[in-house]
Amino acid sequence: MAAVTKTVTKLPAPVTYPDPRGDPELRKEVAAYLGLARGLRCNPSQVLVTGGFSGALGLAIRGLQLGRMGAWIEDPGFPLTRTALGLAGMAVTAVPVDAEGLDVAAGVRSAPGAKLAVVTPGQQAPLGMTMSLPRRLALLAWARRSDAWIIEDDYLSELQLKGRAAPALASLDDEGRVLHIGSFSKTISPALRLGFMVVPPELSRRFGELAACMAPAPAAAVQRAVAEFLREGHYIRHLRRMKRLYAARRATLLRCLGEVASDSIKVQATAGLAVMILLPEFASDVDVALRALQFCLAPAPLSPWYMQPPRQQGLLLGVTNLNERRLPADCRRLLELAR
Amino acid sequence: MAAVTKTVTKLPAPVTYPDPRGDPELRKEVAAYLGLARGLRCNPSQVLVTGGFSGALGLAIRGLQLGRMGAWIEDPGFPLTRTALGLAGMAVTAVPVDAEGLDVAAGVRSAPGAKLAVVTPGQQAPLGMTMSLPRRLALLAWARRSDAWIIEDDYLSELQLKGRAAPALASLDDEGRVLHIGSFSKTISPALRLGFMVVPPELSRRFGELAACMAPAPAAAVQRAVAEFLREGHYIRHLRRMKRLYAARRATLLRCLGEVASDSIKVQATAGLAVMILLPEFASDVDVALRALQFCLAPAPLSPWYMQPPRQQGLLLGVTNLNERRLPADCRRLLELAR
Repeated sequence: MAAVTKTVTKLPAPVTYPDPRGDPELRKEVAAYLGLARGLRCNPSQVLVTGGFSGALGLAIRGLQLGRMGAWIEDPGFPLTRTALGLAGMAVTAVPVDAEGLDVAAGVRSAPGAKLAVVTPGQQAPLGMTMSLPRRLALLAWARRSDAWIIEDDYLSELQLKGRAAPALASLDDEGRVLHIGSFSKTISPALRLGFMVVPPELSRRFGELAACMAPAPAAAVQRAVAEFLREGHYIRHLRRMKRLYAARRATLLRCLGEVASDSIKVQATAGLAVMILLPEFASDVDVALRALQFCLAPAPLSPWYMQPPRQQGLLLGVTNLNERRLPADCRRLLELAR
Repeated sequence: MAAVTKTVTKLPAPVTYPDPRGDPELRKEVAAYLGLARGLRCNPSQVLVTGGFSGALGLAIRGLQLGRMGAWIEDPGFPLTRTALGLAGMAVTAVPVDAEGLDVAAGVRSAPGAKLAVVTPGQQAPLGMTMSLPRRLALLAWARRSDAWIIEDDYLSELQLKGRAAPALASLDDEGRVLHIGSFSKTISPALRLGFMVVPPELSRRFGELAACMAPAPAAAVQRAVAEFLREGHYIRHLRRMKRLYAARRATLLRCLGEVASDSIKVQATAGLAVMILLPEFASDVDVALRALQFCLAPAPLSPWYMQPPRQQGLLLGVTNLNERRLPADCRRLLELAR
């Protein structure tokens, strides 16, 4: 491997314990970015730098002190969220999502006493729809009425390939019920394991104490580098570039899949970074995904994202990392497997 | 500031989510290091890479699932540990330490039902004594008898200035009751915010799941760099060099303080990286420490480390970072303040 030469300037070398709530510069940059890109006005004192989404989720669960109370999650929804709430001892209720996102009325019917809802309003994970404004308002009204909390998992931030990303749910929150979690895993690199959480002002002190004792912000150098990346405008430019690149890759993927799709297999784009392939009922998406590992394509099976039957069988194909040369052949082989 | 040019070779660039339990290479190196330097034989699968000591403590508190049970801490002891256990809702009992370390019999008398003890057996924080072998065996016997857990805070590892560091308490643990926490904060740099925890084999799966959902290991690049530092032998050599350097600095500090000490103010070395100055009862160490901030010396007041009165008034002076030229004058001014 060739040697990489890099010139580093200006950054003072950090030598002491980093602020456990996060590097002040990074917290300032994150707050500024959220104001611009997510419509979310907050003070840097409300921002905590975390070990990605899961680090933030752990801190939120600890800080909200909900014990064994009930929590709503989206069905289908991110399996890690479900596992985390379960391991923390909460009573998890799967609430269905429809074209407008989480069905708030269904949540109220099945778990009226819940004290937490974890949602992906920007691009529902995994189905990709954006939560509608009426649903957002209904969810916020429920939280106010029930003295409950909402965790907004904003995993893609503005990195949405279809149209312009909606503002964050937290931007509509006048009552301080929403904890907004963002991450650099999809927008820069998962290898950074870097994320952040914006908490309502009343919680910032308690969360800061918890971070100091039990979940401190990560290495100073990583935080400083990302702060600089944001401050100098590289991050916004990078996102713009990635949107164009991923949209082009998605178009190629959709075209290749379209050429080989059949009546029993539906292909659809989501607002996120994946293309969804819906399989017939009798297929096993887990099985297909396992067998597909021999290609460049590494689809994630859809059914494990469901808590309750009927579990839609399907495949989620990421568009970020494709080998365009091999794509036509790989798509054909994938859909042959799925048939 | 001059540009820093650095050539990086050999390390493959990490591009995906790091293993939430920690980089496999680093876990392997940590296990090998602990076997050599701390007499602690463990499998890399028992090692979790954490956000320093506090990240490990948070994970341990979550993973042990002790709810509102009782916990012993050392008195005096590390304030952050006390705060963490308190915030987690545990009933904290301060157990006195004597020349042999934590007084196990006193713990049994005052909180017989405790299910956790957090100790610093290597170099008691802050008093610096090493826990004696009989005490270690008594503590392990208590844990076995009471179905309780021990967290070993091995914050200095082998970086001990007086004699050779004793093996880790966990090396004597045949029953899987000890969680051993180490950190690179004192031995490399606190700016890394990097630590690790060795859990008994029966806990490694549960802790791995918790780490994945709520407290993942930090950025891949930081872990890989430290793994390389260990693998190539730099870490062991660095510790050896630091021991010599810090011992010399400590000797200088003790000499300067000795020249100005008086009958009412006692100066004593600890096994750790600090020199302790014991002040008369009527002094306020917090006040002296605040006023001393004007010098290079930034002593930590001793009394906040105590939970129960009488709280010894004193100052802890770190030896790692001293301005030797200014030292004689600063020591004189410090002890004038303390008088």
